[in-house]
Amino acid sequence: MKTPALVLDLDGTLIDSVYQHVLAWREALSEVGISLSVWRIHRKVGMSGGLLAQALLREIEHPLDDSIKDRLQDAHARAFARYAPTVGPLPGARELLAFLTEQEVSWAIATSSTLDTARETLETLGVADSASVITRDDVERAKPDPDLFVEAVRRLGVDVTNACVIGDSVWDLLAAKRARTLGVGLLSGGYGKEELVQAGAFRVYEDPADLLRHINEVGVRLPSW
Amino acid sequence: MKTPALVLDLDGTLIDSVYQHVLAWREALSEVGISLSVWRIHRKVGMSGGLLAQALLREIEHPLDDSIKDRLQDAHARAFARYAPTVGPLPGARELLAFLTEQEVSWAIATSSTLDTARETLETLGVADSASVITRDDVERAKPDPDLFVEAVRRLGVDVTNACVIGDSVWDLLAAKRARTLGVGLLSGGYGKEELVQAGAFRVYEDPADLLRHINEVGVRLPSW
Repeated sequence: MKTPALVLDLDGTLIDSVYQHVLAWREALSEVGISLSVWRIHRKVGMSGGLLAQALLREIEHPLDDSIKDRLQDAHARAFARYAPTVGPLPGARELLAFLTEQEVSWAIATSSTLDTARETLETLGVADSASVITRDDVERAKPDPDLFVEAVRRLGVDVTNACVIGDSVWDLLAAKRARTLGVGLLSGGYGKEELVQAGAFRVYEDPADLLRHINEVGVRLPSW
Repeated sequence: MKTPALVLDLDGTLIDSVYQHVLAWREALSEVGISLSVWRIHRKVGMSGGLLAQALLREIEHPLDDSIKDRLQDAHARAFARYAPTVGPLPGARELLAFLTEQEVSWAIATSSTLDTARETLETLGVADSASVITRDDVERAKPDPDLFVEAVRRLGVDVTNACVIGDSVWDLLAAKRARTLGVGLLSGGYGKEELVQAGAFRVYEDPADLLRHINEVGVRLPSW
């Protein structure tokens, strides 16, 4: 019986970027002539970009076609690039990863972003090149499909029943459930606590700093004790 | 026994401006050297600007002084001006106000903003100069104090027990409770449903369009029936 491994989402979980992504999607949608309330976009962020666009268009019964999907993803990337300078690590994010490494708790980052998009963010977190980072490029389907978490667990060499997924959105928690891992929620993506609990979060913490203070509650055992 | 009067909040309730306000506050705080997670700012929006600044500074144990308060409010106003072109009415907002007017249901708008800040927004909503609009300038204390709603009810000439407050934040609902009015929540400010219910919302709707579809549920009786 090994100590649990931690699989961490990136945006909203380790990085304070959700609200910037939300407004970048609003701009992208507006650019293709679609007006959508900002809170509706917020509640879809964390899905893969393609699925987010599909889900939003379906809700307003807008025709889906591949050209609009590609234009949306491009426009979002351009808009988000303008917000990027205001994005940084969440409180405790670096400390949490450093602590896990030091205590020999296996961990991985699993994000719906492409490696290209995630690379700069990973640098600001001080994540070493040797770390396990699973991105959109590594799997066929991003969240809320379980693929990212299944692949993370495979790379860490642990059993799914011994892995704990940390995420800020209900899509992380849905994917965690489908991967048969334990799900833990963080408020740092702007969801309410009850939304995360209803989506299957075993526990909910404020942010990485709060999780670090309560790390033993998610089943982590430290070899130094 | 009259039909209930409706007292409506502005930002997040009739206008899709919460996320822009949140990022404008983040910039303002950053300008005075304070780094705060964006979700924490989101959960304070809807309070008066001064109280929001005070609440955030208190949480991180930052010294409070009047000079920082004024600098923050100035910086927020400047940052928000850049976001203003992306702000517009929420779905159903104009239709809701037009319907209430047509059906002779008394209504007022009560906002923690100053009249100067709110004026442009009121124009995009098509609110007539003769409408009852209560702003920060009309009362000593903005939300979550009850003053704005108490003054709105006074101007409409109805009893507090016969008024229904519509708001998107827990601060609207706290102020509604303190004013002894009925509180109804909207999801359009980005709070979760359960957060609004726990803060005292009798009902929660998605946005003004959804409220308009269910207007009879909040006790409104239409004279034409």
